[in-house]
Amino acid sequence: MSYKYLEAFFKPKSIAVIGASRNPEKIGYQLLKSLIDVGYEGRIYPVNPKADEILGLKVYPNVMSIKDEVDLAIIAVPAPSVPEVMKEIGIKGVKCVVVISGGFKEVGGEGVKLEEEVKSIAKEYGIRLIGPNCIGVYDPHNKVDTLFLPRGKALRPVKGEIAFISQSGAMGVAFMDWLAMEGIGLSCFVSYGNKADVDEVDLLEYLMYDEKSKVIAMYVEEVSRGRDFIEIARRVSMIKPIVAIKAGRTSEGAKAVSSHTGALAGRDDIVDAAFKKVGIIRAYDTHELFDYARALATGRVAWGDRIAIVTDGGGAGVMATDKLTDEKRGVGLKLAELKRETIRELKKYLPPFAIPHNPIDLTGNATPEMYKNVLDIVCRDENVDGIIVIVLIHPPMMDESIVDKISEVYKSMDKPILIAATGGEPTQRILKMFQERGIPSYPEVERTVKAMRCLVDRGRYLIKISQKNKY
Amino acid sequence: MSYKYLEAFFKPKSIAVIGASRNPEKIGYQLLKSLIDVGYEGRIYPVNPKADEILGLKVYPNVMSIKDEVDLAIIAVPAPSVPEVMKEIGIKGVKCVVVISGGFKEVGGEGVKLEEEVKSIAKEYGIRLIGPNCIGVYDPHNKVDTLFLPRGKALRPVKGEIAFISQSGAMGVAFMDWLAMEGIGLSCFVSYGNKADVDEVDLLEYLMYDEKSKVIAMYVEEVSRGRDFIEIARRVSMIKPIVAIKAGRTSEGAKAVSSHTGALAGRDDIVDAAFKKVGIIRAYDTHELFDYARALATGRVAWGDRIAIVTDGGGAGVMATDKLTDEKRGVGLKLAELKRETIRELKKYLPPFAIPHNPIDLTGNATPEMYKNVLDIVCRDENVDGIIVIVLIHPPMMDESIVDKISEVYKSMDKPILIAATGGEPTQRILKMFQERGIPSYPEVERTVKAMRCLVDRGRYLIKISQKNKY
Repeated sequence: MSYKYLEAFFKPKSIAVIGASRNPEKIGYQLLKSLIDVGYEGRIYPVNPKADEILGLKVYPNVMSIKDEVDLAIIAVPAPSVPEVMKEIGIKGVKCVVVISGGFKEVGGEGVKLEEEVKSIAKEYGIRLIGPNCIGVYDPHNKVDTLFLPRGKALRPVKGEIAFISQSGAMGVAFMDWLAMEGIGLSCFVSYGNKADVDEVDLLEYLMYDEKSKVIAMYVEEVSRGRDFIEIARRVSMIKPIVAIKAGRTSEGAKAVSSHTGALAGRDDIVDAAFKKVGIIRAYDTHELFDYARALATGRVAWGDRIAIVTDGGGAGVMATDKLTDEKRGVGLKLAELKRETIRELKKYLPPFAIPHNPIDLTGNATPEMYKNVLDIVCRDENVDGIIVIVLIHPPMMDESIVDKISEVYKSMDKPILIAATGGEPTQRILKMFQERGIPSYPEVERTVKAMRCLVDRGRYLIKISQKNKY
Repeated sequence: MSYKYLEAFFKPKSIAVIGASRNPEKIGYQLLKSLIDVGYEGRIYPVNPKADEILGLKVYPNVMSIKDEVDLAIIAVPAPSVPEVMKEIGIKGVKCVVVISGGFKEVGGEGVKLEEEVKSIAKEYGIRLIGPNCIGVYDPHNKVDTLFLPRGKALRPVKGEIAFISQSGAMGVAFMDWLAMEGIGLSCFVSYGNKADVDEVDLLEYLMYDEKSKVIAMYVEEVSRGRDFIEIARRVSMIKPIVAIKAGRTSEGAKAVSSHTGALAGRDDIVDAAFKKVGIIRAYDTHELFDYARALATGRVAWGDRIAIVTDGGGAGVMATDKLTDEKRGVGLKLAELKRETIRELKKYLPPFAIPHNPIDLTGNATPEMYKNVLDIVCRDENVDGIIVIVLIHPPMMDESIVDKISEVYKSMDKPILIAATGGEPTQRILKMFQERGIPSYPEVERTVKAMRCLVDRGRYLIKISQKNKY
């Protein structure tokens, strides 16, 4: 159970910050600030031979001078000093270390040698190491934050159910900042940089057992330990879905990866086949990663490909239908054929001139109540595997109460419902409200349709593996 | 020159609002309010037999009782009363009418007959008619606004260079509200609904001569007068680009259109071939329409397909490269091969461990000044036809001054530069600042890459037609 060894990265009882600084411009200051800002509840030990107190915390000249046990060490000293610090940490008996410092494999030459040295010290002392050249861990549940970026520069997402691991620190931070703005929560985040030790395989294994993580989102440029990765991914994705961006998938992109991280990106057709086999859902464009992860985090899947569309914008319904049914430029799903009794029931609630068929157009006479009644009926139709609701809030009788009305229906059943809404600030507010109530919402019809396809794929995968297990 | 007859829709010297109301809940009130809010500078004549004054304006019992000339009439009375009102307008000699009222062809049955009646009255009196079942015209330059939606519900975009015409009122409003939030300007907007008279052909002809419109964005569900449309589109797109969403492009989507508007959507392969032939750029997903229009509105095109990428996020550079070079899932352009002297020059400005090749990674040590210097050099490279700049503002030395620095380079040359930036509120602010300075900016790397492809396509089209004209 090697995953147990990683626990101190996420739930450390005490943390030492090596290279702590009094200067607010320095990473060593921000690291302490981040731990205080996130409300870390354990002991913090700043280490710096030239300071007595930083941010009200007693400073230690070195790790050895800390009397108590240290669960996790964060290192932010210049690369050439890292091996020395690692040895001290090893002697002190610290078992988990995040090396923030850059200047290792990613810069080539001497950096490569330095990284090898750090690796062998870690091995010698049995230290598990995240990094170097990373931004480390953010866990809003356990209140851990090793990010050296001030919150004014990069906001942190709220608590949630998506675990996000990123090989790239910059992409990680850009995503986190965006997630925070959108109100999308994370169970935890790990940027693991050069992965001198802890890699995707370790993290997947850890996250498999992490109950607060319902889905795993990954940004990777090259996968380490291919066979082990595929094996662990197969096991994980039986329990919880994995969504992954594999950057460097084209030959030009792979070249860019290699000069950026010094790693080889691997042939994409092989990656693709392997991912498919073990149920990893691939995201291609940036937004897809969290569009899919959010939909999957609900725990709902579509057990078939027959989708109903409900909207108050006829044109939006047409756009969604195009994207839904198109095999080439769309996602190749089906418009559900509504049952006769559904149509009969719908007539009671639709405006007299509205034609009750899928896509269901509530027209500009739509009200939040009408949405609720119509959704109630549509959800009960056995020919419907999932529902896309496109809310345009501009018609006269529409307002924010639409969120509560749809939430009511959502809670009363277990089919997936995904929301689309296009518009300005009031629309953005509504999108966020849906998201906060656990109903995935997207600013564009086509993104919603793609997320629904992801839930259909997940349903298919689960059916496939359950049938395999039967025999 | 039939387009001349449409001028009163966009630059009316006086406007009558038929069906004006004292009740703020009514469309007839909002219409007056919108004209006042936009700062309309001509005379407004509210018409309502049961009121004396609304919003401080003198009310007339009918159109005939208005002594002065009326340039434009906006009708918002119930559908059955519209023919009667149209006749009065005809007698009064008004030449341009927007019929907001719904309840015509789109509801079938009696509505179809009613629309025919309105059409023949318009013909009889030589009235040009926009609508019925539309929201009409918004022109921020000439301060005309016939939208019945209060600004609290749907914001209006600022002045700009994109003309936007939409068959769907709901989609039109949703887009406008979104454009306003994003700081993207319009030259004018027309929702033309059932197009009993004025259709795409008329509007394209008008917009061809409209100097403030640099690009035309269209949302259409079915094109009227196919041959005429193609002919006028060919002429227009030699002068200014047209970007179009053609909704109802799949067979299921076309069925949805037909029940939604009563029109036939037409075979998509024919539409596609015709659009391609005359240089109409097709948008498939919702965001593409304005992503492309914004890029084209700059007037800059890429005269080749060799693109440089400049970024401070290595991973983002890889993602952009994947999207750029992928033939299947991407846009199939080329990474520019930088000239030797470019590489030599770049070395002066890049961090020592950064490798100067395309995609150019400024690393986490990036500064706004570094961006400027690097862009200056890259723009001068003859092997580069367009530049994608991906700005992650999280590195310590990055801040909002990046906008001015890049603007400086932008103004000094004429190659297209498109911006991508991913992140939370500070990033959104920077995106808007770029947009306001006339540099198209997108919240996602892949959208930027697609917009660049659009500029390459436009360049190819212009080269093609110029070669044709040679012989």
